[in-house]
Formats: sequence, C-alpha cells, structure tokens
Amino acid sequence: MNSAYLDDFLTFLRFPSVSTDPEQKHHVAACAEWVSAKLRHSGLQVEVHATGGHPIVVGRNEHRPGRRTVMIYGHYDVQPADPLELWEAPPFEPRVVNNIVFARGATDNKGQILAHILGIGETMREEGELPVNLIVLVEGEEEIGSEHLEQFLTTHREELRCDLIAVSDTGMVGQGHPTFTYGLRGIAALELKVTGAATDLHSGIYGGAVANPAMALARLLSCLHDSEGRIAVPGFYNGIPPLESWEREAWAKLPFGDEEILAVTGAPELFGEAGYTSLERTWARPTAEVNGIGGGFQGVGTKTVLPREAFAKLTFRLVPGQNPEVVMAKVRVHLLAHCPPGVKLEMTGGHAGEPYVTNPNSPDGVAAQRALKRAFPGKEVALIREGGSIPIVNTFKRILGVETLLLGLALPDCRAHAPNENFPLENFEAGIRLNRALLQELARLT
Amino acid sequence: MNSAYLDDFLTFLRFPSVSTDPEQKHHVAACAEWVSAKLRHSGLQVEVHATGGHPIVVGRNEHRPGRRTVMIYGHYDVQPADPLELWEAPPFEPRVVNNIVFARGATDNKGQILAHILGIGETMREEGELPVNLIVLVEGEEEIGSEHLEQFLTTHREELRCDLIAVSDTGMVGQGHPTFTYGLRGIAALELKVTGAATDLHSGIYGGAVANPAMALARLLSCLHDSEGRIAVPGFYNGIPPLESWEREAWAKLPFGDEEILAVTGAPELFGEAGYTSLERTWARPTAEVNGIGGGFQGVGTKTVLPREAFAKLTFRLVPGQNPEVVMAKVRVHLLAHCPPGVKLEMTGGHAGEPYVTNPNSPDGVAAQRALKRAFPGKEVALIREGGSIPIVNTFKRILGVETLLLGLALPDCRAHAPNENFPLENFEAGIRLNRALLQELARLT
Repeated sequence: MNSAYLDDFLTFLRFPSVSTDPEQKHHVAACAEWVSAKLRHSGLQVEVHATGGHPIVVGRNEHRPGRRTVMIYGHYDVQPADPLELWEAPPFEPRVVNNIVFARGATDNKGQILAHILGIGETMREEGELPVNLIVLVEGEEEIGSEHLEQFLTTHREELRCDLIAVSDTGMVGQGHPTFTYGLRGIAALELKVTGAATDLHSGIYGGAVANPAMALARLLSCLHDSEGRIAVPGFYNGIPPLESWEREAWAKLPFGDEEILAVTGAPELFGEAGYTSLERTWARPTAEVNGIGGGFQGVGTKTVLPREAFAKLTFRLVPGQNPEVVMAKVRVHLLAHCPPGVKLEMTGGHAGEPYVTNPNSPDGVAAQRALKRAFPGKEVALIREGGSIPIVNTFKRILGVETLLLGLALPDCRAHAPNENFPLENFEAGIRLNRALLQELARLT
Repeated sequence: MNSAYLDDFLTFLRFPSVSTDPEQKHHVAACAEWVSAKLRHSGLQVEVHATGGHPIVVGRNEHRPGRRTVMIYGHYDVQPADPLELWEAPPFEPRVVNNIVFARGATDNKGQILAHILGIGETMREEGELPVNLIVLVEGEEEIGSEHLEQFLTTHREELRCDLIAVSDTGMVGQGHPTFTYGLRGIAALELKVTGAATDLHSGIYGGAVANPAMALARLLSCLHDSEGRIAVPGFYNGIPPLESWEREAWAKLPFGDEEILAVTGAPELFGEAGYTSLERTWARPTAEVNGIGGGFQGVGTKTVLPREAFAKLTFRLVPGQNPEVVMAKVRVHLLAHCPPGVKLEMTGGHAGEPYVTNPNSPDGVAAQRALKRAFPGKEVALIREGGSIPIVNTFKRILGVETLLLGLALPDCRAHAPNENFPLENFEAGIRLNRALLQELARLT
C-alpha cells in the first residue's frame, strides 16, 4: 500500500463531516475544502459550490470534443456516529487493524470516493491526461437526502452534461467478489392513524361497545398480505415483468443466500413471498413493511385502557414496472375498503422514490464488468440488484438523462451506518485499480 | 344539608391520601386516623391495623347473638391527582359549586364511605343502637390493588365473619336513579412479544426475506376476532349462560344506552359483538382488548427499519361462566396456532380476576332494592351489571364465604380517576339515607 494513499485516507476520515449535525458544519465545510484540494492535486480544475446546505465539490479535466464524458459521483458527508459506546475506538480516530480501516465513513463513502480520486491522480501522473472527459461531483448531503443536489443539477445542467455516471456506493456479494448492481428498489412511505373515542377509555366500562383503534389497526395491517407472504392489495403486482431466467440462475449461484442472511440477521427462520428465493425477494420483489407501530399504554405492567388512537408507519419497496403513485393509490383504496367499523382511518403519504434498473449487458454495462474484472483479477463479476433505494440515481436520469453504473465496494459486514464501520485496504486498492480500468474501458466505446 | 356533615366531608377530602405515592404516606396514615375517630364518634369500637402498606381501619358495634352480621367495605385512599393542570381548582382543596363537591376522592370513595359512617352515627344517636351486628372495614390500598387486604382477611377471618357485605363504590345509571349492580366482569391479562431478527434491520436490504414482527403481531391480533366483532378463539364462549330475557328487557329501558355512550366517549360510531346492545356488550359479554401496542420506530417521519420486536398488552374481560385460567389457555393455544412463520411468539400472563354475579332477587338483593327505593323515593331501582372488575368481591367470597351487594352512588360524569372528580351533595345525603334503610331492611331478614 502506497503510504501517501493511506495517509490521505486517514486524514479524510478524521473530519467529523456529519451532515445532519449543525455543530459539525465547519468540519463538513473543511472536509469539502480538503476534497477540493485533493481533486486539484489529482490534476483537475475544481469549484466548491455553496448551497443552502453543505457545499458541492465539482472537479473536471479539460474536456475535448469526440471523447465520452463520464461523471463520477460520491459524497464526503457521513452518518452520525452514535451510539458511541458501541465503538471499539473513537469513530473519527481511524485505526488500521489487520489491514482493515475502522472509522465512521470508511466504507460509506470516503474510502470508495477517495479511491476514485486517487485513481484519477495516478492516471494523470502516469499518462499526463485522462482517457475521457471527466466530471467528479462530490456532495455533502447524501446522508440527509441530497436536499440541494436536484436544484444544483438543474441549474448546472449544461456544465454537467455527460454520457453516463459511475457510483461506488453499493455492495459486493463477498470479499474479493466484484459486483455490478443493475437494479434498485423504489420506495413509498405511508403513515396510518386510526382513531376512535375522544380520549383513552376504561376498558372495563366501555370495552365491547366502543371499537379499539389498536385492534382495528391490526386488522388493517393484516389485510396487506395473504398467509403465504404475498401482498393482497388488488393490482399491486401489475406491470412487474417476471424475473428473467438468467437472473434467477445467476443469483442462485452467488456465495450469498439464505444461510448468510440467517447468520447476519439472527432471524429464527426466513419467511417471504411464496415462490421466490430470499435474494429474489429482497432484490426483485416488492414489499409492504411496518417500520413502526404504536398506541395506548407503553409502560411496564398493565393499564386497562382502550386507546384513543394507534399508528403504523409503513414503507413499501417497489420494483421496476411499478409506479409509486399508482401503487400507493391502490394501497389506499384497499385499506379504506378494509377499515373496520367504529374507527376513523387517516393516511398520510411520505417520501417516494422510483425503482431503478439498467441493462447490465449494454455496452457501458459490459465495459463496467470488464473494469471490475481488471480490478479483481481472476474473479467472475456478480450481477445483482439491491433491495435498498438510492433516489439520486433516478434524479440523475430525470435531469441529466443518463444511466448510472453502480460499482460498489462495500462488504456485507462493513457496518455502514453502524458502530465500527470498516473498509479493507484491499478494497481501497481495488477501488483505485477500478477507477483506472473503468475510465479506460469506457473510453474504448467512443 | 347538615352543615356538620358537609364540614366532615370537606375535611376528609383535604387529606391527600394518595396510596401509590410514598411521599404522602404520613397523609394516608393521618387520614386513616381521622376515619377511625369518625367511626368512634359514630359509636363504634375501632381498631387501626398496621399492614405492610397502609393501615386498615375496622369498626364494630357490640355484636349480639341472633342478629345478622353485615360488613360495610370502603376505602379512604385515592388515585393520584395528575394531570394537575387539567383541574379547575386544586384537587385537595374541595369546592362546592351548585351543590356539587369537587375534589379528588369526592366520589371514589370518600363521599360514599363517609355517607355510610354518618348514617351509622345518625342511627346510633337516634336509636341508641344499630339493628344489625355491624363491621365497617375501610382500607387504604384499594387504588393500588388491595395488596395487604387478602392476608388481613385470612388472618382475621373469625372476627370478620359476617352474613353479607355491602359496598358503595359502583355507578348509577343516572342522577336520582337508584342502581343495584349484581354482576361484574372478570379480567385476565396477557402480554404478547413477537421477535424476529437479532437487531433492527435495514428494510431495503432485508425486507422481503426476513419476517416483520410488527406485521406478524398484527396478524396475531386480527385472529382474535371475526369481522362481526365476535371473539374467534375456539371455545371462548363455552359455559356462558345466555342473557336472561328480564335482563335484556330491563337494560333496554334504562335511561343510558348507545346515545349516552356515544356522547360520553366521542367515538365516531359504536361497534361490538354482533347480536348484542352496547349495554349487553359491556356488562355481560366478554372482550379481548389491546391496551397498548408498540414496536420499531416511534419518532416523527420515516425510518426504514425492519423492527426486531413488537409487543401488545392485552386484557380480556370475562363474564360469569368463564374461568380465567381455562379461557386463557384456549387463547394461548389459538395464538400459537396462528403465529406466522419467521418469528417467535412469547406470551406472559398477568393479573387475573374472576367474574362476579349475584342474584339480585335473593332475599338480601330484594332487601337492598327496598333500601335503595327508600334512599331515592319514588324511583324504580335499575338492576345492572358493570363492565369493570372489582377483584376484592371475589376475595370476600373466597375467604369469608359471603356475597357482596354493590350499591354505588357514582354518576356517569363523576370523573373518578380523572381531573375535576365530583360528587353531588344530593348523592351524599342519599347515601346517608341508604345506609340507614339498608341496615333496617337487612335486619328484617333475621
């Protein structure tokens, strides 16, 4: 490992660039400045753009006609570190143990975006120029919903025009196993509030004559699935293309499946939609989940109250072929139709994001796979989707009109968003190789 | 109104005899002493018995062979007064407004037990003796589960031997409408805990492959009822005798029913077990209620978590013919049989109390009805059951082997256990008349 690279990585990790914390605002700004200096040092021209929130750093080489334009996107902000007591060492004092770097942001996303920046610098030093017109966009609000990015993309659409975008912020199926993510689930949030009497009531005096909102809520939630784990909302699955056989076959061969999910989650057994494997259920099938439920007495022991209200916070994960608005309208109709007597049901929509899928065997997809093979020599590339949602990918498509290649380097046990986040130096080095190979492979398609 | 009686009432109410609050322990003790002095002043011999908690005060006249022995039971402790900000005046500074006394404990139970004590004093002063052998037992832990009463009854069983017990701590169907309560529901508590993965999971990464405990809990709760409000546990209703036609007819004529329940509760509409009226549902039919439910994210907005666990606190109200142990065993079997895959269900039983019913047309019941008519001249006596549970009534039956007459004076809007608790002076005076008439009517049965 080039010791200057490691020094850069550790320096980057020492900034407590927690975007959600107003107290860290100056650290976030200092981190943006550090990134801009690093990009400049790699040979790019850099601008730091102020926003209503944290700065957006944009670097670019000298663009020349006739070359493809590639944008690399990443973020320098990190999740909060709490609960602090579960960290084995302070989260912003990075440690290297057995060639693994432990610190908040190690995987998400400082290790991955820095590998790209260092790869660019290597190419510039060795070749004097890059094989493509490059834009590097590093924002500071990814962990808080990229609040100011959409406006920025719109305002600067002309300067940001490109042929495709590459992002390293997704996962690998296992150590050393290069992974190309070609699909993400969308999301739609819905909060249910069921109200009954004007106040909590004595369950002895009124129980039996006045409907119980918590019981009514339970009936509503239970009407969302059938007994085999399928979503029971009429038309919910409309428009979803069947999984292709190559996907099912490829996923079945991956070194990650039921056994690993059971081990990682500690669930007593796995359960989901009938007819699909766990990977198919999480990557390619929609879900309806309760994220939180509450109502009535929350203390220790018993309080014989008939609660006045109960709530459930739901999110639905959606897959390609589903439109969040259309699907959520069906869900609302279904819930209203199943609302038990004696209570009122209020539904409040929340954030929504479209699902995403790109063709992994498009010319760019094939180029990306070749680059991944060069970064991890001798290994087959896993073609996967992921169950999470990255709304910015659809924002890129809508505003800039281009596809995004998801070439992530996060391992299943990287602990992103959790205590003891970590990133192996092996992946950091592979990321530098990946950047160099990717720009070369994409340049070939000119 | 005898002004000395009113003075006594207001003095009694000024003791903040909140049994659950260790800081008020000396006030509770002082209140017990005041009650003992009052009983002594009424002409009884009195003992104040220390317990592991608050004292039990027992007064008795000179018992003579050949007379019936009657115990009057009540309590001098009160519920906490909070939320204080909802009181229109300080809860322990009683005020008389439009002949209604406002203070914590006015109805529950100080006004009602003091009326008995003053009635006894009147008879003693006017007649020189009581028509029965009397025991007055006033405890200080009713509002915290009568923790030390059962042991006391067992230890003192011989001295407390009696033919029946009278209690004024239940409700009236309306102002001026004398009410005899001949049945109470029982209760059984059960807490459900549904667990899935070892920690909260990302609902994008794992949602679909790992069961959601909150969703599983909803399915479990919804299997407790059918769509018409009947409890769906096999055998749940076994052994419950049908309502008698005189009960259904009498209750249908009461000046309290659906309209009043809607007005008091503010529920959007009433709903309960098909085939029964609201009064039948609350007084004579069992229920399964969620008192509290919780799990996962409880904050504002969205957190896309798949909760590791969810809980529901249930209480079942039971009616005569049902045995709590037998019924709860059926409930557990039913829930276990319906537990969805992928989660673990733990069930923890809580307190339980038998239902109670006595024959209102027994000789003692008829005597009580005559006494109620004399206390409220010109009015018919309402024969009702109540939906709540008073476990001490079954304790009396088990240890002392006698029935309890429930001759309550609480109005539907008395706000017992709530801010602005109140008791009309009219009911206080009726209570004094009731005591005198009751002892005379019961004495006639000798």
